Amino acid sequence: MQANTQFQEEALNTIRFLSADAVKHANSGHPGLPMGTAAIAYTLFTKHMRFNPANPEWADRDRFILSAGHGSMLLYSLLYLTGHADMTMEQLKTFRQLGSLTPGHPEYKHTPGVETTTGPLGQGLATAVGFAMAEAHLASVYNTEARKIVDHCTYVIASDGDLMEGVTSEASSLAGHLGLGKLIVFYDDNKITIDGRTDITFTEDRAKRYEAYGWQVLHVKDGNNISEIDQAIQTAKADPRPSLIICKTIIGFGFPTWADNPAAHSGIPSDEELDGAKKALGYPVEPHFYVSDEVLTHYREALTRGRQAEAEWKKNFDEYRQKQPDQAREFERVMAGGLPENWQDVVPTFPADARGLATRAASGKVLNALAQTLPELIGGSADLAGSNSVNLNNQGSFQKENYAGRNIHFGVREHAMGAISNGLTLHGGLRSFVATFFVFSDYLRPALRLAALSEVGNVWVFSHDSFMVGEDGPTHQPVEHLNSLRAMPNIALLRPSDANETAEAWKVAIERKDAPTILALTRQAVPTLDRQKFASAEGLRRGAYVLADLGEGSTELVLMASGSEVDLIAKAGQILAEEGVSLRLVSFPSLELFETQTKEYQDGVMLPGVKARLAVEAGSSLGWHRWVGADGALITMDRFGASAPAEELLVEFGFTVENVLEKSRQLLAGSFQ
Amino acid sequence: MQANTQFQEEALNTIRFLSADAVKHANSGHPGLPMGTAAIAYTLFTKHMRFNPANPEWADRDRFILSAGHGSMLLYSLLYLTGHADMTMEQLKTFRQLGSLTPGHPEYKHTPGVETTTGPLGQGLATAVGFAMAEAHLASVYNTEARKIVDHCTYVIASDGDLMEGVTSEASSLAGHLGLGKLIVFYDDNKITIDGRTDITFTEDRAKRYEAYGWQVLHVKDGNNISEIDQAIQTAKADPRPSLIICKTIIGFGFPTWADNPAAHSGIPSDEELDGAKKALGYPVEPHFYVSDEVLTHYREALTRGRQAEAEWKKNFDEYRQKQPDQAREFERVMAGGLPENWQDVVPTFPADARGLATRAASGKVLNALAQTLPELIGGSADLAGSNSVNLNNQGSFQKENYAGRNIHFGVREHAMGAISNGLTLHGGLRSFVATFFVFSDYLRPALRLAALSEVGNVWVFSHDSFMVGEDGPTHQPVEHLNSLRAMPNIALLRPSDANETAEAWKVAIERKDAPTILALTRQAVPTLDRQKFASAEGLRRGAYVLADLGEGSTELVLMASGSEVDLIAKAGQILAEEGVSLRLVSFPSLELFETQTKEYQDGVMLPGVKARLAVEAGSSLGWHRWVGADGALITMDRFGASAPAEELLVEFGFTVENVLEKSRQLLAGSFQ
Repeated sequence: MQANTQFQEEALNTIRFLSADAVKHANSGHPGLPMGTAAIAYTLFTKHMRFNPANPEWADRDRFILSAGHGSMLLYSLLYLTGHADMTMEQLKTFRQLGSLTPGHPEYKHTPGVETTTGPLGQGLATAVGFAMAEAHLASVYNTEARKIVDHCTYVIASDGDLMEGVTSEASSLAGHLGLGKLIVFYDDNKITIDGRTDITFTEDRAKRYEAYGWQVLHVKDGNNISEIDQAIQTAKADPRPSLIICKTIIGFGFPTWADNPAAHSGIPSDEELDGAKKALGYPVEPHFYVSDEVLTHYREALTRGRQAEAEWKKNFDEYRQKQPDQAREFERVMAGGLPENWQDVVPTFPADARGLATRAASGKVLNALAQTLPELIGGSADLAGSNSVNLNNQGSFQKENYAGRNIHFGVREHAMGAISNGLTLHGGLRSFVATFFVFSDYLRPALRLAALSEVGNVWVFSHDSFMVGEDGPTHQPVEHLNSLRAMPNIALLRPSDANETAEAWKVAIERKDAPTILALTRQAVPTLDRQKFASAEGLRRGAYVLADLGEGSTELVLMASGSEVDLIAKAGQILAEEGVSLRLVSFPSLELFETQTKEYQDGVMLPGVKARLAVEAGSSLGWHRWVGADGALITMDRFGASAPAEELLVEFGFTVENVLEKSRQLLAGSFQ
Repeated sequence: MQANTQFQEEALNTIRFLSADAVKHANSGHPGLPMGTAAIAYTLFTKHMRFNPANPEWADRDRFILSAGHGSMLLYSLLYLTGHADMTMEQLKTFRQLGSLTPGHPEYKHTPGVETTTGPLGQGLATAVGFAMAEAHLASVYNTEARKIVDHCTYVIASDGDLMEGVTSEASSLAGHLGLGKLIVFYDDNKITIDGRTDITFTEDRAKRYEAYGWQVLHVKDGNNISEIDQAIQTAKADPRPSLIICKTIIGFGFPTWADNPAAHSGIPSDEELDGAKKALGYPVEPHFYVSDEVLTHYREALTRGRQAEAEWKKNFDEYRQKQPDQAREFERVMAGGLPENWQDVVPTFPADARGLATRAASGKVLNALAQTLPELIGGSADLAGSNSVNLNNQGSFQKENYAGRNIHFGVREHAMGAISNGLTLHGGLRSFVATFFVFSDYLRPALRLAALSEVGNVWVFSHDSFMVGEDGPTHQPVEHLNSLRAMPNIALLRPSDANETAEAWKVAIERKDAPTILALTRQAVPTLDRQKFASAEGLRRGAYVLADLGEGSTELVLMASGSEVDLIAKAGQILAEEGVSLRLVSFPSLELFETQTKEYQDGVMLPGVKARLAVEAGSSLGWHRWVGADGALITMDRFGASAPAEELLVEFGFTVENVLEKSRQLLAGSFQ
């Protein structure tokens, strides 16, 4: 292989020492990765990546994801060098400081040019699979024989830690199955993790493993050699399979004593170590953050290349628009994340029905109606599509042979599903939904957290939302999940009480473009409330609302519930009202949405002056005391469930009209202990 | 291969139809797996497994784990047939009914003979890796040249779903690295999952993948052929690597239309389907639950074999005891789960120190002291052993070459770590601890839930427990984790405020043999409180306790906090007391433990009559309203963190003495809104 030129070496060293200087300056960070992978990033950003630093939002750009997010200075250095306007030298000098664009790990939305938030290992690579699937789908839907308006690659740099994480295994297996040929992953094979050399725990044959997944596996023997890397990328691009390029690299390359040593991972180099590295690699020791004019000019050619590439694409798109004006309009709309006019009109309303239907079933109907009018809706389930009611009728399966399909078969891979959903949505042009049993939301929680943190507007359909799962028993019965997810910032968890609240919940979810929405849905049928008698289901938008005031005179009792338990308080409320009690029924589908309401609205619904208050929810009690107060009562679940028919469990766990009546009467008598 | 005899076929059909009849009878369950894997289970239980149905607790029994827990009737059938006393025919007939020993998925502790709770896919296989590690460790520690008192296999039946789950990938990679030759996994390769044939999503080369992990991979072409299975088990046992035996099976074998069809997974067979299967396989259609005397006698030979095997082992152990009385006594102690006398004496106490130390550092000291006196303590970290302070000094690494090592290098595999920890502890003879950053507890949550559900007494060390992680930013800063885990039943989450509470927390964790304990520990130093001035750290055991009453007269203000925030209220309290305020300081390390106290104790600590109340915790507010009441105030975190030095974040997020003072004064003035 051709050796790097001296100028190229200087360009690599510029990345390395911008990164190392920034870590030194911040007295915090991870210098090892940028020093070891500078040549990979250089080759990608200067020779392969189609992107326009002047417009990081260009629809058809290649995507780059630093899955090993701790090496963030690699990315920030490149963003600066290639001329992203916001990423100034000042930002590099305020690495890891409050309010800078250069946080410890790359954060989507916070920093232009960052495609997705990374840091928690495995998430980047798995999310990248979602990006590649989005590209394949949009290309399949919008490209014509004559014109490709969607045609780009997804590049990833991943570490040992990424490859050890299970989410990566799940996503990589699926990527191989789907033949995502435009997904190209560099594996920074430096044989070092925090606790030592990989031989203490990670000795599997990684090449063979990826071959088993159906990937093309390539080897770069010298991860510092630009032409070897370049060659590998070309080979990767030419193959219809996703590619793993295993690059032999040296963590902390250049450091006199830290090279090839775990200390380089997150150590702050001493002056000797840092200066020694600069001397060893022939780079000026001073000033720190040194970039030569020649090197900067070289990197900034990305601006020219980028402008040109985007201009060509625009020309192509304009021609496309003339032939396919409707498709072009739709493409622009979905890429901008807008919604078509009157999109809500298709959402069904459900007539009152004492027998009713499961909210998962109502959800399936609403989702299918929305899918007709919103082509950007794409998703699926982790092998429970039927149970979760998320099959999109007549929309085909997303498969290698049919990327236009909108039903994704994620397999029993909940965690990858979550990360992929983030990628599908972050890519632009799509809104993704995913589904599994509520209890298995635990499996995908790290991906859900990243959705919340990076404000991804996807929808998480969790059916079988309580012990009413029944015979499958406590392993399949969620208990703590409602409150455990309510504790997470930026999420709205909606637990609709009937079919019409479910329809409203989907509308809210679609409107929430900048945050994930969870729908917690029943397995079992629940009555469809008579909205002539009870307030409109639109109240769901406010989190909690007055369903009805029953009885005469001033309110003595407030009964509140979410989801399937609303039926219990409604029935008990009728009985109490007939006995002469004046009471209020509150449907409480979302604690988060309610908390965003004004104090006036909250007090208007909750009537805090009324001391007799009862909340009913088939989940843990944590958090409910806030709404029932010191004198209130709860019917909740602070234990695991049990395997038995649901009707028996309702009695066993006290979720009966009788128990609501009993507790209510105790409250009214002031005898509730 | 030799064909099954007619009698063997009858024995297989007995498993199949006990299972299918039970599903039919319960009108709920999963008939497909037992019908497809009957021959695997038969071969194992009658020809290979060393176990004594009369004593399911025998220390040196082979372990069997049905990772595909939905096929629970397979296991229950075998337990009944081989003569486990509790597993009567009546139990099979009350499959999936309230209070029966035959819940929907196998539950540890609930049903004798069930080694671990399974159902959530992937957990069984990953937990089995922990069982095999426990065997390897105990064998290495206790066996002598002359006598093996620990020498048994761990057998698993796993499904497509298990193999798709990331936790399985992580655990299998580690098992290969560790060369766990006594781990033998049958892969029920039936090519069917709930959503359809595996070719819609799971087309990777599974054999190659497991070879890449360093496993021996064997193939059974006919999963109904006993002698082929028998041969494979013999080959598996003879190899030093873990073995994956890929068995071609047919889901719902025998069903006229459901065989090899997703409907067999969890469908309730119609009379035609069930009777048709019996006819096709030559089994009596009536009565249901039919077992011929000959078949039962054949299976019940397990009792004779088992008694004999255990008797031989006991004889061997008695001889071992004569030569190694101390080791024998210790082995018996650890297998029984007892603790040595005065084990707590080694736990250090820490002198008052205004500078103090991080609770993770204190934890490291306590853990090392305990490890000296408790040889059953074994564990490690997911590549953060140094950061989590869980290295056991001079205890060696658990490796293929040194199974006696007590430091496990889990790699960046949090989820497998959690499941393995469950297996290590469930096996008996060991108490396991694991560690990672608190924010990454999300990655192992499904395993933690199983620990809570099945009452596993392991310890989960989560360091870096708040935004005070600092520069690593929001991806690494836990916010919702405290409350999200508090919502889970059977867990005690302990967030000690200083070194002495940390010592106390470890004691509580060790005493909690029947439930998992979480230690949430600081990254940053916290002062070691002067316990002459403040109450003893033993108060931690009660969840919350009065640290001090400051000022004169009746209490006007209650300040409560957990973990690192106790320092804030202590400092603010001093200032307020000097200003003449009479106040109470409450250290609140565990909401769960406090909830188990009497109402008298709770009220005695909390003084609910005092309306001016402030809680301070660097986590989400959910749940805290219960303790501060309607008029109280909170300093909590209901947003994600940010990347910056911790000291700046303290100010940014209001975790300062000044803010505690300000909120307190507002409360005292009645002006807190």
